[in-house]
Amino acid sequence: MHVTIEHAESAIAAARKKAKELGTQMCIAVVDSGANLKAFYRMDDAWVGSIDIAIKKAKTAVFFGMPTGLIGKLSQPGGSLYGIEHSNDGLITFPGGLPIVDNEGVLVGAVGVSGSSVENDHAVAQAGVAVIGVSDLPAHPWRT
Amino acid sequence: MHVTIEHAESAIAAARKKAKELGTQMCIAVVDSGANLKAFYRMDDAWVGSIDIAIKKAKTAVFFGMPTGLIGKLSQPGGSLYGIEHSNDGLITFPGGLPIVDNEGVLVGAVGVSGSSVENDHAVAQAGVAVIGVSDLPAHPWRT
Amino acid sequence: MHVTIEHAESAIAAARKKAKELGTQMCIAVVDSGANLKAFYRMDDAWVGSIDIAIKKAKTAVFFGMPTGLIGKLSQPGGSLYGIEHSNDGLITFPGGLPIVDNEGVLVGAVGVSGSSVENDHAVAQAGVAVIGVSDLPAHPWRT
Amino acid sequence: MHVTIEHAESAIAAARKKAKELGTQMCIAVVDSGANLKAFYRMDDAWVGSIDIAIKKAKTAVFFGMPTGLIGKLSQPGGSLYGIEHSNDGLITFPGGLPIVDNEGVLVGAVGVSGSSVENDHAVAQAGVAVIGVSDLPAHPWRT
Repeated sequence: MHVTIEHAESAIAAARKKAKELGTQMCIAVVDSGANLKAFYRMDDAWVGSIDIAIKKAKTAVFFGMPTGLIGKLSQPGGSLYGIEHSNDGLITFPGGLPIVDNEGVLVGAVGVSGSSVENDHAVAQAGVAVIGVSDLPAHPWRT
Repeated sequence: MHVTIEHAESAIAAARKKAKELGTQMCIAVVDSGANLKAFYRMDDAWVGSIDIAIKKAKTAVFFGMPTGLIGKLSQPGGSLYGIEHSNDGLITFPGGLPIVDNEGVLVGAVGVSGSSVENDHAVAQAGVAVIGVSDLPAHPWRT
Repeated sequence: MHVTIEHAESAIAAARKKAKELGTQMCIAVVDSGANLKAFYRMDDAWVGSIDIAIKKAKTAVFFGMPTGLIGKLSQPGGSLYGIEHSNDGLITFPGGLPIVDNEGVLVGAVGVSGSSVENDHAVAQAGVAVIGVSDLPAHPWRT
Repeated sequence: MHVTIEHAESAIAAARKKAKELGTQMCIAVVDSGANLKAFYRMDDAWVGSIDIAIKKAKTAVFFGMPTGLIGKLSQPGGSLYGIEHSNDGLITFPGGLPIVDNEGVLVGAVGVSGSSVENDHAVAQAGVAVIGVSDLPAHPWRT
């Protein structure tokens, strides 16, 4: 199952609203459960460098079915996943990428946000996911 | 000058409307005048392979300030630009990518469309550009 | 929906049997409907250069929901899709890649084969698909 | 000398059995002594992001004839191989990749596993190697 374009648009609209409330300029990406781009939106004056980061955050969240920030905790020097960012044409493992899980517990895609502090990026991604699903996956196996 | 997100949204809405009229499922990309992604929209059931093609068509149209199909006429075997597709991480030089030129003759971005025949791709891109500008550039120099 | 590993194994076993009948050494790849690798098998003495070709053929067949050879007919010099191979990190558009469509008409993945003549590659891919589905998709829309 | 497809299949079967015992969903890759993919197997519900990691672990283990985790100890900040992951189109240097050494002490390939904790990944790779060889190489020179 993949996130629909209707849901992707709702997520982007909600994320955009949150970004404005925070006074930020964000890049917002939505990918489907195969990590393929579904929709993308760059607010005026957002960093050009955030385009790729937002997309990579969304892909990273789908690749492993978890928030990007969780992976980043394990990929620090000395951590069990140190260097994982070198896989999959480049991962981004700091906060701002969140899985989208539907009400049957199925991973249907992810939202990735970049353009401000990681706290703001995370809050905007959260706002996007919240209108169409949740970010928590049930215990494995969960992918379809 | 870059296409604004407001204009990009208008272009995608118009392109989407045209795509539906034609009974097609399209990927629609908008890039700014620096060839950086501004907005992207993948209709449900569009080919996954069209994501990259739509984006590359938009980039190609901005890279050279002309419709992608024009470049394709010059890049055939024996043509003056044979093999140009190998540059810039890959160009797409068949129809479906069109520059966006504002009413002062300035290139502000491009629309790229992929998902059906090249005739349909071109028609959908044209519908997108038409609501916010034109595709014809004045004589060089025109870039800002 | 994605091809299961059980089905992927059946496809590879059937393809391998056909390859042996033909006296060939093949690389055989199966991808899911998101174009992500599901299973791969390289027969002893197969060309090392065929690894990437088999995988790219499978991806190409999923990207556009059609046999790779069909795309190749349109991508010849002067054709409407000339140069499409430059997209998606490289397509392979000669025969040997076939979609896998389940009995409800849903694209669930693809088989890609490389290692001999394109006729043999195609025949081996066909043998792989035949045990788990068909290669013909209903009219658009068909993707899930 | 290269691992045969018969041996690669035995390794994958054993690894898969171990993965099931551990209640995990794994990607399992086997490469030959030239670091070229020989066989690959993705269990249903395994992370999509683990495809590339499993393959890179196997390649990394062959590139240097040692378990990936050993390299990771040397590539930490301040370590003698800091940043080695940037070579060879991306290495993965945490546990889960193991060389396959035949009974004459010759490196014939490697197994790479990804999909769970690094301890589980390592255990599954170990189970795969154990049925067809060992992971310990004699002192240099050993490559053929």
